[in-house]
Amino acid sequence: MKKAAIITVGSELLEGLILNKNAQFLCQELKNLGYRVIKISTVGDHLEDIAEEVRSLLSKVHLLILTGGLGPTKDDLTREAVAKALNRDLFLDQELKKKIEEKVKKYHSEIPSNIERQAFVIEGAKVIDNPVGSAPGQLLEVDGKRVILFPGPPKELIPMFESLKELLKTPHALYQVILKYYSIPEALLEDLLKEILYSQDKVEVATMADHVEGVRLKLTTSVEHKKFLDGLVEKIIEKTGEYLYGMNDEKMEEVVVRLLKENKKTLAVAESCTGGMLSSLIVNVPGASNVFIGGVVAYSNDLKKSILGVKEGTLRKYGAVSEQCVREMTEGLKKLTGADICVAISGIAGPSGGTPTKPVGTVFIDLFEQDHVTIRYNFSGDRNTIRTRSAMMALENLRKHLKERGKL
Amino acid sequence: MKKAAIITVGSELLEGLILNKNAQFLCQELKNLGYRVIKISTVGDHLEDIAEEVRSLLSKVHLLILTGGLGPTKDDLTREAVAKALNRDLFLDQELKKKIEEKVKKYHSEIPSNIERQAFVIEGAKVIDNPVGSAPGQLLEVDGKRVILFPGPPKELIPMFESLKELLKTPHALYQVILKYYSIPEALLEDLLKEILYSQDKVEVATMADHVEGVRLKLTTSVEHKKFLDGLVEKIIEKTGEYLYGMNDEKMEEVVVRLLKENKKTLAVAESCTGGMLSSLIVNVPGASNVFIGGVVAYSNDLKKSILGVKEGTLRKYGAVSEQCVREMTEGLKKLTGADICVAISGIAGPSGGTPTKPVGTVFIDLFEQDHVTIRYNFSGDRNTIRTRSAMMALENLRKHLKERGKL
Repeated sequence: MKKAAIITVGSELLEGLILNKNAQFLCQELKNLGYRVIKISTVGDHLEDIAEEVRSLLSKVHLLILTGGLGPTKDDLTREAVAKALNRDLFLDQELKKKIEEKVKKYHSEIPSNIERQAFVIEGAKVIDNPVGSAPGQLLEVDGKRVILFPGPPKELIPMFESLKELLKTPHALYQVILKYYSIPEALLEDLLKEILYSQDKVEVATMADHVEGVRLKLTTSVEHKKFLDGLVEKIIEKTGEYLYGMNDEKMEEVVVRLLKENKKTLAVAESCTGGMLSSLIVNVPGASNVFIGGVVAYSNDLKKSILGVKEGTLRKYGAVSEQCVREMTEGLKKLTGADICVAISGIAGPSGGTPTKPVGTVFIDLFEQDHVTIRYNFSGDRNTIRTRSAMMALENLRKHLKERGKL
Repeated sequence: MKKAAIITVGSELLEGLILNKNAQFLCQELKNLGYRVIKISTVGDHLEDIAEEVRSLLSKVHLLILTGGLGPTKDDLTREAVAKALNRDLFLDQELKKKIEEKVKKYHSEIPSNIERQAFVIEGAKVIDNPVGSAPGQLLEVDGKRVILFPGPPKELIPMFESLKELLKTPHALYQVILKYYSIPEALLEDLLKEILYSQDKVEVATMADHVEGVRLKLTTSVEHKKFLDGLVEKIIEKTGEYLYGMNDEKMEEVVVRLLKENKKTLAVAESCTGGMLSSLIVNVPGASNVFIGGVVAYSNDLKKSILGVKEGTLRKYGAVSEQCVREMTEGLKKLTGADICVAISGIAGPSGGTPTKPVGTVFIDLFEQDHVTIRYNFSGDRNTIRTRSAMMALENLRKHLKERGKL
């Protein structure tokens, strides 16, 4: 497989003024074209820093892409730096200069004197047309390798990259599958799968984990090994299918809305500590209105009583964060909305409100269709993390419940 | 000025699966602490690649920060790579192992066998506590230079970095003030302020805009010009104070909760297209329970009628996305909750549901205390953007209303 590297040039990146979206875009595109990106470097607008990075990376890769530093000002040094690193001359292309000046005339009454800088071309380079801005790109062949210079603004870079895709395509396009889990810890998942995953070397395995998407298992191989990877996925699902919530780009809330539709069930939710977050995740799925009725953000105890009918005695005896309370919440919600499935969440998101028996992070989630399924959790993290984990876990419980139903 | 460099480790970055937000965060923070970041490198989960980059960069900088690769799995290699690059041993810290196991026990019934990997410490390193996840950080002093290892998830990295800020501060630290606006366009703000901002050269000015935080005006200077910058801020507030919602890290929802407390007012909200997002934003502010009662996610028309008492005739005649509907929603909500101030949102978030007279992005927001303030908006963007803008604008309306009250 061909290797690639990216150099993003610009002091504004090193000062944190802009987020490096070009690097992500190029990485995604290069992966699809069959390259393995081995490094991304961000350097400032300094001739020697850029040149050194070009020399160092070109010894390791087949394709080197540079972005930024092609403007007309004195601190735009990418052209000079690449020429220096490759020991090539830089010459003024008179025809290109005219073209650029004509472009600039369209937007500005005066042609800036320094615009000429953009018409300097590295010896042997092919000029890449910029359909949006004035800075042309450049493409070089160096001992069977390629070096490409793109301008920094994504609006200019993206169409210019697209115009080279056909040229850059390799026979080794990648094939990738991502498996997504929520209620199994990363380490435990790896424990379950280590024999399957590490007894082969055709598929590269990586795991990622966060409290929004859960644990993602990323499997990558070249297209020629597609069948092998698909077989591996089957084996993995055999072992861990009960935990798996989705594949590739699929989000948990999308899966839940899809399963509700398939099962022809409606949903309503009553939220205390999550305060609308669960509803909001569901509503963000287009078409949620077919299955989602709505719900109550019963943040105060008064509202738990007045709208959902939670008993005063329950709150006094067990507290709002209790199995009894979430069960009365779903029962009240069912009466109020007539939804097939009702979910209630009540917990202590912190930073205050914890007690020795119910510390911050204690959360009760009830799912009520014919029967109650009530689970107590102890989540960690800050207020927002505890709330996000609670909402995601409620979705995961819904998913499991709907999956079980599907089997009956 | 001290130099710094950042190595972000992770094949998921090189494949474009995640956007490198850590690099931007660290660059901003390091700039404020008085460092000049000279390079950011992203390398994959390969021992030799990480080690080589550590060696190469440590010869050039005073501070080297690595992120990612501190998890418990086989592809988490940052600890090993740094130890190798520095020719130091890596040893199992039994006490740390116990601590990590205790942490993991809280959430998982089983302790994964590979969790031990996270308890390996580089010879001479100080362990940095991770308040969110299980992976501890490490801080090393190497010939008067510093090397710091942080985990990759921003939720974990950010608080861990904050805990080291005092230690990392240099004499060249910067002074910065950020002014935040929601209901004034960027260009208009700049027009109002151009004389104040561009008649001086001590303070660097930058503007940023997005639909969550609104328009932010960032003013930066060296610590010695603190007084000058504070004076500039006063002049800016004189001109634009009515639009200003907050400063620095202050979030709109925090300002609204604070103003509700100051005015001793309670709030309830009824949401349709935002589906709980507004509630969720408010509930994420610690102490919101003192002023926020809760609300109704009246996503279906049935719920608008049954819980909030919106009239069938209103829905038939004007539709759910109408001035009349949001007014009946707030009136119903007031009866239901007894809140001092009630807010209702109803709109078309798309992608479908638009009509020629009410295209996607049409949103009505009503604020009801003694009287109704109802505003019709036409937001652009995708479903999530329209919903976010709606929720943020409801907060901005609340802020303005409470500010006006404060003046009476």
